[in-house]
Amino acid sequence: MATTVIVGGVAGGMSTAARLRRRDEQMEIIVLEASGHVSFANCGLPYHVSGVIPERQSLLLQTPESLRARFNLDVRVNTRATAIDRAANTVTTDTGETIAYDHLVLSPGATPVIPPIPGIERALHLRTVEDVDAIKAALTPEVKSIAIIGGGFIGLEMAENLRHRDLEVTVIERAPQIMAPLDEEMAAIVEKHLAGHGVQILTGAGTKTIAGDALELADGRTVPADLVIASIGVRPASELAAEAGLEVGERGGIKVDDQQRTSDPAIFALGDAAEKADAVSGEDTLVPLAQTANRHGRLVADIITGRDVRRTTTLGTAIVGLFGMAAASVGWNERRARAAGKNIRAIHVHPADHAGYYPGAETLHLKLVVDADTNAILGAQGVGMAGVDKRIDVIATAMRGGLNATDLADLELAYAPQFGSAKDPVNFLGYVNDNMVAGERTVQWHELEEMVADGWMLVDVRTPGEFAKSTIPGAVNIPVDEMRERVEELRDSRALVFCRVGLRGHVAVTLLENHGVEAANLDGGFMTWEYAPHDQG
Amino acid sequence: MATTVIVGGVAGGMSTAARLRRRDEQMEIIVLEASGHVSFANCGLPYHVSGVIPERQSLLLQTPESLRARFNLDVRVNTRATAIDRAANTVTTDTGETIAYDHLVLSPGATPVIPPIPGIERALHLRTVEDVDAIKAALTPEVKSIAIIGGGFIGLEMAENLRHRDLEVTVIERAPQIMAPLDEEMAAIVEKHLAGHGVQILTGAGTKTIAGDALELADGRTVPADLVIASIGVRPASELAAEAGLEVGERGGIKVDDQQRTSDPAIFALGDAAEKADAVSGEDTLVPLAQTANRHGRLVADIITGRDVRRTTTLGTAIVGLFGMAAASVGWNERRARAAGKNIRAIHVHPADHAGYYPGAETLHLKLVVDADTNAILGAQGVGMAGVDKRIDVIATAMRGGLNATDLADLELAYAPQFGSAKDPVNFLGYVNDNMVAGERTVQWHELEEMVADGWMLVDVRTPGEFAKSTIPGAVNIPVDEMRERVEELRDSRALVFCRVGLRGHVAVTLLENHGVEAANLDGGFMTWEYAPHDQG
Repeated sequence: MATTVIVGGVAGGMSTAARLRRRDEQMEIIVLEASGHVSFANCGLPYHVSGVIPERQSLLLQTPESLRARFNLDVRVNTRATAIDRAANTVTTDTGETIAYDHLVLSPGATPVIPPIPGIERALHLRTVEDVDAIKAALTPEVKSIAIIGGGFIGLEMAENLRHRDLEVTVIERAPQIMAPLDEEMAAIVEKHLAGHGVQILTGAGTKTIAGDALELADGRTVPADLVIASIGVRPASELAAEAGLEVGERGGIKVDDQQRTSDPAIFALGDAAEKADAVSGEDTLVPLAQTANRHGRLVADIITGRDVRRTTTLGTAIVGLFGMAAASVGWNERRARAAGKNIRAIHVHPADHAGYYPGAETLHLKLVVDADTNAILGAQGVGMAGVDKRIDVIATAMRGGLNATDLADLELAYAPQFGSAKDPVNFLGYVNDNMVAGERTVQWHELEEMVADGWMLVDVRTPGEFAKSTIPGAVNIPVDEMRERVEELRDSRALVFCRVGLRGHVAVTLLENHGVEAANLDGGFMTWEYAPHDQG
Repeated sequence: MATTVIVGGVAGGMSTAARLRRRDEQMEIIVLEASGHVSFANCGLPYHVSGVIPERQSLLLQTPESLRARFNLDVRVNTRATAIDRAANTVTTDTGETIAYDHLVLSPGATPVIPPIPGIERALHLRTVEDVDAIKAALTPEVKSIAIIGGGFIGLEMAENLRHRDLEVTVIERAPQIMAPLDEEMAAIVEKHLAGHGVQILTGAGTKTIAGDALELADGRTVPADLVIASIGVRPASELAAEAGLEVGERGGIKVDDQQRTSDPAIFALGDAAEKADAVSGEDTLVPLAQTANRHGRLVADIITGRDVRRTTTLGTAIVGLFGMAAASVGWNERRARAAGKNIRAIHVHPADHAGYYPGAETLHLKLVVDADTNAILGAQGVGMAGVDKRIDVIATAMRGGLNATDLADLELAYAPQFGSAKDPVNFLGYVNDNMVAGERTVQWHELEEMVADGWMLVDVRTPGEFAKSTIPGAVNIPVDEMRERVEELRDSRALVFCRVGLRGHVAVTLLENHGVEAANLDGGFMTWEYAPHDQG
């Protein structure tokens, strides 16, 4: 009888185990889990801190007992695998056992990064059910202020949930922006929203020391911190693999082939501990997401039981909900694409999530990053109060299906006024891209200043009322509906046109170009420009 | 100077006109609209009847004046094109004009089908702003009961909005089910929901006469009807084209090529009046949807202005919102696929729209129709209180991208507990399909009776508590978690297994098959079976 030993009993490990049993009733399947719980809802942990998820029990999806009953699994919690003897095909544990395996599956997950900050040992983390218990226990009535080090997904989810408990919350992020998967002008929308809900965000802020009930920052400021939560990020838990001589990549992930096999063919790895293949570049990458772990768990079980299947590459689709706002991304952002030397088109649109004439429509901020040489979709980002998840999922699916950026214009998405628009926001991205392919010039918010310096005239084509309220410094106002009769005013200019979101600007640019005036449209309009970070207000 | 005349100024016609102007500043563009309004929000009309959309004004997205100012369009409302002289390249109107064209674009839309029922002249319709005005005017305080003939999208939207006005509403549908794009067991979920909101639904019900304040049905029943609304469907408004000798298809749609050209190369047609190419079969079809009209309007403008672009085929993605529930479909349903002689797989799943451990999760009913010979996705349907639009849009995008049914398992969809699950409902469809490809047998609700008659043993693998509450008549109860030790009880049987939604059934079937017992799983479980129509309760 064959034995498979699985190290790690949360998303990937438990998917492997359950699928193995469904495909092989005879196999001995042993799961070793270092924490006290298996198959828990790790993505739900922050919400139990606030009580949004009131019952701790509802985070515990399975127990060793329930898994024994249903799948005849031998699940051992509080059991850490400490060494692999590849010659003997055995694993030893901190409970003193040595277990022989035919196949070994490594799915130990990731461990929180601990930065070398004096006092960091005071900081709590959030990774396991035990971590939640510790944070809840630490939130005594005396605790008023919390400092969260790290403005990533989990740090921000913690910020929301601690605000629900009426605590003073400061997020300290070393980078110039929170939420690294987003570009800065998209992250800025989230920052503003968080600030509106009382979360203080400090970006570009290094933590120097943690002492007493405060953090001292590198720039000398102090942050009140009765409690400190460190959420800097995670690194693959690949020590066990490395010590066993398995190949480990530059970023610390266990190297695997497209069947999740490590450099030892009897050993598989998956989940946060293993490398993935990036969908855009094909290169090795780390993507610590539960859904990828689940899919790869199923794959590994199929392969162990004799099915010749291969993994797909990884898009890294991710989303976070923050005080009712969603922020999501898929693929590459502009920063990453530019760093990789790609010739790109960036497209920002701000349509309503559903038909504006139907009550409750919310502005949806979408950004598409396109390879200008191939028209391939490199990635997308979305921020807004409704409909973000749908559009990012649609674009993720389009990317998987090999559709290009113009194809988005022709997607047939379900339309009734509660759910979308006859021209869906995703179609809009495709339309803008198609216009650019056909030669229309757009300008990014960060290119504006240089173009103005170069002599382009800034033309605000919104109404006089909109112009009077607020505009980009230096702009003149020629409303789009007057442009046809006033085109001669721009006869000898190069016109850098903008409106609120880019649509009227597009109309104005086509009109000007048709009249022989060189023109370009500010992509995303005043709205993208206004959200984006500027040196001067 | 070239002139383009456009017949019809709503979705398709107005998209053509605006795009033409953006691409050609010199062209004369004349739009003839038979009703008093252009560019109105036709999909919003039912919601103004109830006051959900309170302002009539908000339905009127543009006026002839606003379109003149922005796009220099010559828009003539209350002007019906009455004849085309193709030899002279002119259109005449009911206002007595004869207008010469270089290109003519026909986008007149569709007209309501009027069944030959005595008294039908009393019935109101809903197609234009004037129709809404007429319905609102007819809703005097004396009107208490409304009969709606036709259980399609618009009829049901009207039913909801009239219920919001506390009227007694009966929907009379001649077919055995409402909502033809759905299969009957999916439509049944919607029927139950509507009934729960006080809409009386009569299916298989022909209307014999409309007289006094009641309808008499073919079976002798009478339906109170202070007001009658006929919403049987629409037919293409192709008379003008037909009279001009343009080719018209069997179903009355104007024939066009893949550039929307009619049989006269100077004349284009699009929108509800024109045929489309079905995405599944490639055959000519009618799809009266605003989004398709908009896309084809843009396409026609590009072609007229010299761009060599082609339409894509049409999936017919559609959705309706009814008392908070969404019902949506894309591509073909099972009925249509079977009628076309396809060898199909049908897959029903009922997962939560987002992680069950996060508050507010709602059951999502999804159905996938797969070509069993090619693994191609033929279509999908979704019904539920949340997340339906997203999943149908994802599947529509997958179909457009040429992904097959198993590929759905690997889609990377954004997951946080508010938005989805680590295994998204769409992934689930892919998993079930993959299991079937690998040989697992499932049984449709309508096949169950015959299999039981053929000697299959019905095995309810839910808990004794679930079994005691309600089960399928004749079933024995062997909970999945006891199956391993009780497998011998089924040794000489063929086991037709079911659970609540199909998941535990899948586990039980794999277990039984691994133990050498022939087994099949009831697709969609007890839930699909219970919703589906049965002769006996």
